[in-house]
Amino acid sequence: MPIISCDIRNGRTKEQKHQLAMQLTQAVVEATGVNIDNIFVVMREMPGFNFVDAGEHVPDYVPGPDGVDLAGHEQIKNRKERTQHS
Amino acid sequence: MPIISCDIRNGRTKEQKHQLAMQLTQAVVEATGVNIDNIFVVMREMPGFNFVDAGEHVPDYVPGPDGVDLAGHEQIKNRKERTQHS
Amino acid sequence: MPIISCDIRNGRTKEQKHQLAMQLTQAVVEATGVNIDNIFVVMREMPGFNFVDAGEHVPDYVPGPDGVDLAGHEQIKNRKERTQHS
Amino acid sequence: MPIISCDIRNGRTKEQKHQLAMQLTQAVVEATGVNIDNIFVVMREMPGFNFVDAGEHVPDYVPGPDGVDLAGHEQIKNRKERTQHS
Amino acid sequence: MPIISCDIRNGRTKEQKHQLAMQLTQAVVEATGVNIDNIFVVMREMPGFNFVDAGEHVPDYVPGPDGVDLAGHEQIKNRKERTQHS
Amino acid sequence: MPIISCDIRNGRTKEQKHQLAMQLTQAVVEATGVNIDNIFVVMREMPGFNFVDAGEHVPDYVPGPDGVDLAGHEQIKNRKERTQHS
Repeated sequence: MPIISCDIRNGRTKEQKHQLAMQLTQAVVEATGVNIDNIFVVMREMPGFNFVDAGEHVPDYVPGPDGVDLAGHEQIKNRKERTQHS
Repeated sequence: MPIISCDIRNGRTKEQKHQLAMQLTQAVVEATGVNIDNIFVVMREMPGFNFVDAGEHVPDYVPGPDGVDLAGHEQIKNRKERTQHS
Repeated sequence: MPIISCDIRNGRTKEQKHQLAMQLTQAVVEATGVNIDNIFVVMREMPGFNFVDAGEHVPDYVPGPDGVDLAGHEQIKNRKERTQHS
Repeated sequence: MPIISCDIRNGRTKEQKHQLAMQLTQAVVEATGVNIDNIFVVMREMPGFNFVDAGEHVPDYVPGPDGVDLAGHEQIKNRKERTQHS
Repeated sequence: MPIISCDIRNGRTKEQKHQLAMQLTQAVVEATGVNIDNIFVVMREMPGFNFVDAGEHVPDYVPGPDGVDLAGHEQIKNRKERTQHS
Repeated sequence: MPIISCDIRNGRTKEQKHQLAMQLTQAVVEATGVNIDNIFVVMREMPGFNFVDAGEHVPDYVPGPDGVDLAGHEQIKNRKERTQHS
């Protein structure tokens, strides 16, 4: 009977959203033994700007050649460098 | 940067909650390519009675020998039979 | 397929929570034509103190003779008077 | 003081959303005795694809002649048949 | 580690959403002593019509000369007058 | 008409929850110009274990002499060191 809700950024393909929902559903089946018929997933999408992590707006999702999020990678790289110098 | 929130019934062990959170996190990593550092899971727990699926209160979680939810299995079995006769 | 989630104060009886869930479910059936099998309600309960309405903590639920919320009634009465004098 | 939040599919008319909100509000008034002034409803809308029930994406809402959801009815019919054969 | 989620009406400028997120983040830092790195804000936006407060749909956000919400002010003024006469 | 919901760990004092709610409310007033009468905050509390950030359970809140979260500080310190060596 679990409900999984998921706040993600706009821009994922239908295939990515499908993968996400399937893997979340499967994760619940495996971890809790709940029958798949009782698992409900809802994905809410918004612009990256609407997510603020540690006081910084998250950049919009920029799909790379293999679906990797280029924008996110850049931000994480910057944060890591900033952390190492503080 | 995804946030996964999860409404589940009371009674799971710490081990089950750990498995659930790890598998949800891993599901997001695999499906979206987001770095694990940017994934946040929150599990909210309530009595089974507070979940109402198709107009029926969900029974409390009753752990079986291997963590399987006995109460839930019973309800699903009943629902399947009811459906077949309607 | 609607999910209704409901944040309410602690202290309601099982009968009240049952009524609430049934009526929410019925409301969705009537307003949207969705089959009852696809409607899911979750009720989350917390102390009144955890709700803050217009900058004021909500008092804990105090059940009156007929299930009426005495505490809430008192607060609303006060607010109305305050409003009339401002 | 209850907050009702509702995740529904895109495509309902304003009239349907009005009916839904009014009936949810009324459901809370009747079941809890809370004054209508303290009830808040928020309806979040997303594509059917963003809802995944029992491992299946929910079809987009397709309004029938009387507001009935044709797509949903089709899916439920299929699921019932599948259940009866399993 | 707090997660703040915020349901607001469409129409705010990026600057307003930035101010909102920054002030929510700062509020958590000051009130809880949690490090800013562990605070996550998500803002969900929907039409005013999707919010129903005390049984009334909220008007869409109408930006005034200084960002003030003209529509909201009008509604509140009306409610206050109604309250005083009831 | 904004609704702010907040998932936090168990263990804060009433005074801390009061500060948090007031500052969240004030943050919305200042950033959006919305009247305080239309702002609603709900704080949901759960054990630290139910929060999983970057694949790690968050430790329970351990109040320090001045309300500072000792457990959280320890974890952040560890993460920073780990990051610098990776």
